[in-house]
Amino acid sequence: MKEIKIGIMGMGTVGSGVYRVIEKEGAYIEHKEGITLTVKSVLALNYSIPIPDEKKVSSIDDLINDDEIEVIVEVMGGIEPAKTFITKALRAGKSVVSANKQLIANHWAELEEEAKKSGAGFYFEASVGGGIPILRTVTESMQANTITSVVSIINGTTNYILTKMTGEGASYEDVLKDAQALGYAEADPTSDVDGFDCMYKLSILASMAFHCRLPIEHIYREGIRNISKDDINYAKQLGMVIKLLAIAKRDGECVELRVHPTMISASHPLANVNDSFNAIMLHGSAVDDVMLYGRGAGDFPTASAVVSDVIVASKTESHKYMTFMNRIGKLSPTLIFNKDWKTSYYLNMSVKNVPGTLAKICAILGEKNISIDSVIQNGGNAKEYTDIVIVTEDAYELSMQAAVEELKNSDVIKNINSLIRVER
Amino acid sequence: MKEIKIGIMGMGTVGSGVYRVIEKEGAYIEHKEGITLTVKSVLALNYSIPIPDEKKVSSIDDLINDDEIEVIVEVMGGIEPAKTFITKALRAGKSVVSANKQLIANHWAELEEEAKKSGAGFYFEASVGGGIPILRTVTESMQANTITSVVSIINGTTNYILTKMTGEGASYEDVLKDAQALGYAEADPTSDVDGFDCMYKLSILASMAFHCRLPIEHIYREGIRNISKDDINYAKQLGMVIKLLAIAKRDGECVELRVHPTMISASHPLANVNDSFNAIMLHGSAVDDVMLYGRGAGDFPTASAVVSDVIVASKTESHKYMTFMNRIGKLSPTLIFNKDWKTSYYLNMSVKNVPGTLAKICAILGEKNISIDSVIQNGGNAKEYTDIVIVTEDAYELSMQAAVEELKNSDVIKNINSLIRVER
Repeated sequence: MKEIKIGIMGMGTVGSGVYRVIEKEGAYIEHKEGITLTVKSVLALNYSIPIPDEKKVSSIDDLINDDEIEVIVEVMGGIEPAKTFITKALRAGKSVVSANKQLIANHWAELEEEAKKSGAGFYFEASVGGGIPILRTVTESMQANTITSVVSIINGTTNYILTKMTGEGASYEDVLKDAQALGYAEADPTSDVDGFDCMYKLSILASMAFHCRLPIEHIYREGIRNISKDDINYAKQLGMVIKLLAIAKRDGECVELRVHPTMISASHPLANVNDSFNAIMLHGSAVDDVMLYGRGAGDFPTASAVVSDVIVASKTESHKYMTFMNRIGKLSPTLIFNKDWKTSYYLNMSVKNVPGTLAKICAILGEKNISIDSVIQNGGNAKEYTDIVIVTEDAYELSMQAAVEELKNSDVIKNINSLIRVER
Repeated sequence: MKEIKIGIMGMGTVGSGVYRVIEKEGAYIEHKEGITLTVKSVLALNYSIPIPDEKKVSSIDDLINDDEIEVIVEVMGGIEPAKTFITKALRAGKSVVSANKQLIANHWAELEEEAKKSGAGFYFEASVGGGIPILRTVTESMQANTITSVVSIINGTTNYILTKMTGEGASYEDVLKDAQALGYAEADPTSDVDGFDCMYKLSILASMAFHCRLPIEHIYREGIRNISKDDINYAKQLGMVIKLLAIAKRDGECVELRVHPTMISASHPLANVNDSFNAIMLHGSAVDDVMLYGRGAGDFPTASAVVSDVIVASKTESHKYMTFMNRIGKLSPTLIFNKDWKTSYYLNMSVKNVPGTLAKICAILGEKNISIDSVIQNGGNAKEYTDIVIVTEDAYELSMQAAVEELKNSDVIKNINSLIRVER
């Protein structure tokens, strides 16, 4: 029986999950895979579970210089010191398994280059979709496809918040407070609610799916802070739900990348992905639509992906590197990042409750070639202002933004309450 | 660039899909994977698409004796001659990729043994769930898990029929006729509607998931022929839908395997899997619930899985064999196939419309320790007989079957219209 000795950097939620999954499933993994996984050393500032003293090390060099350790798991998170530590490990020829989306989204190319130089493996299934095996699906099961779209729910915290807002009619602020109290959201929720976490993950996932490097700076990003109870209620009236979607579409050399709150039909496969669950829908030229659903975070689900990577890293004779990463590839040099995508829009406005208001709005939209699909108007009473909700047909993003600027200046409009994109 | 020459046996729907996907995606596969796939020879009785004459061969020996051919794709279906042909190919050391669930479910061990002897690869992702990469997910992404349940929709024809019955209120017979006219169901629909196709697939999938051989003879099988419009309507009233589910559950050494129509809540993740789509839900000890959704049949989706297997077979240096297949494994010798599973039941009966009827039914169920969850009774009018629908709490299968026998003999019951299992 081949024994693989592992070093773990970080012993928070995911680190402890990895440690316990290896403990619990080790014998069965041995039975199925013919390898014994042994955690030899752990490097951490704090230990969320008891670790035998002889396994604790205090310096990265204790891991790097230990010839017995073949695979190093990095579950510390953040850019530094993770980047320095991983670089050292790869240079020492040790395969690295990481769950660190922020680091990989920002420094993938450099780390991949280090791995390639020493022949070490570099795996990060857990960085996108937690326990959902989405990256391996793309690289090992969808090779026969040109993937043209990724539509995904890949942040559990915001999905939990939107699910609660929808189910309980509560406000964003109230649900966020509850989520923080329950530990589902962090004290500073910025990374989740403003879409940064989604952006990192989308950069990694879409790069793999489209087989070309798609850096975060090309991703449009908008979070869920401004979603109101009214928006949730209007969505219901329209037979839709609001989700924070990470979307990537490719049409030849033209790529669009965007993270934003999105209305989707209640019958869309992603509409029933609730609470902290994640799901990723891919469209491939041969396979058509495929969706993977599961737990996008948490100690054991994330550990499932990490330990799977450890097993693959241990059993792979020559590691695979992303051919698109540092080379002048077929796609990259000519790639166009399209900011003028086409989608439909939900527009919620406070307007003057006088005859002719809707006509003026329609005229502004019409000038920009934006057609109206449906209108909800709570008119008929004597109030000075009323809300009007418009769902457009497919229109261009830049035209819509220009129309919104004009609407803001129109004398019949008091306020643009919200503009939410709608995916059919 | 490494060139892999391929032989294809069978040129029906899937065979033509494989041929065309390689044609269409070949250049991109070359770019991503660094290998060129070339279909060198095709062996078929009929050709559903034009194939250049120089690629047509007339005997299995033309494939076997061609040293240039490394991988053979079998997409003929049926037991013979596929079994003989695959055996010959494996003996000749050629890796085989098959989509043949019936053959694999019945003769897996022998074929695996041949592969092991010669060192050839034997891959069959396409045999379960068409384009959905479920087998590779189990073996390459869920290694860190003890998988304890598989709940799945893995037959597109029956899912199409049940979706239409639910959506249109049509009868089984009418929808089947339409499905046959559209080519979604075969002239002899037995394999699909009586659950044989599901049974083959469940045997393969659950064997992989539980890592022990689970032959078809241990699978309880019941098809959808007896599902009535009434059942569909009552399901709606109960907030449920009816699906043909293939279910495997494992609790230690105890395994239950069953294919039957099942009522599930309308909010269950499988409830919205409609038309000919398939979906498989797995529960793993670490990852919790994971679901994969996609097209379970069709030329291109199935070809997506076949070509993926061809690529994996081509790039794998030493092929992996199922360790559980022919060996006295940890699980197999002590495995118990449980026929007395626990689930709830929907019972639809025509009963005498007299006071005391429900009491008598409850007494019979109560004697078997079956508690009632809800009752729908359309009483109150003057008819001699009326329908009564009971949904039970969780109960044992054998107790329920015994209760049904007693109910049949009761003087207040005219007919047991249907008994459908309910999964929560």
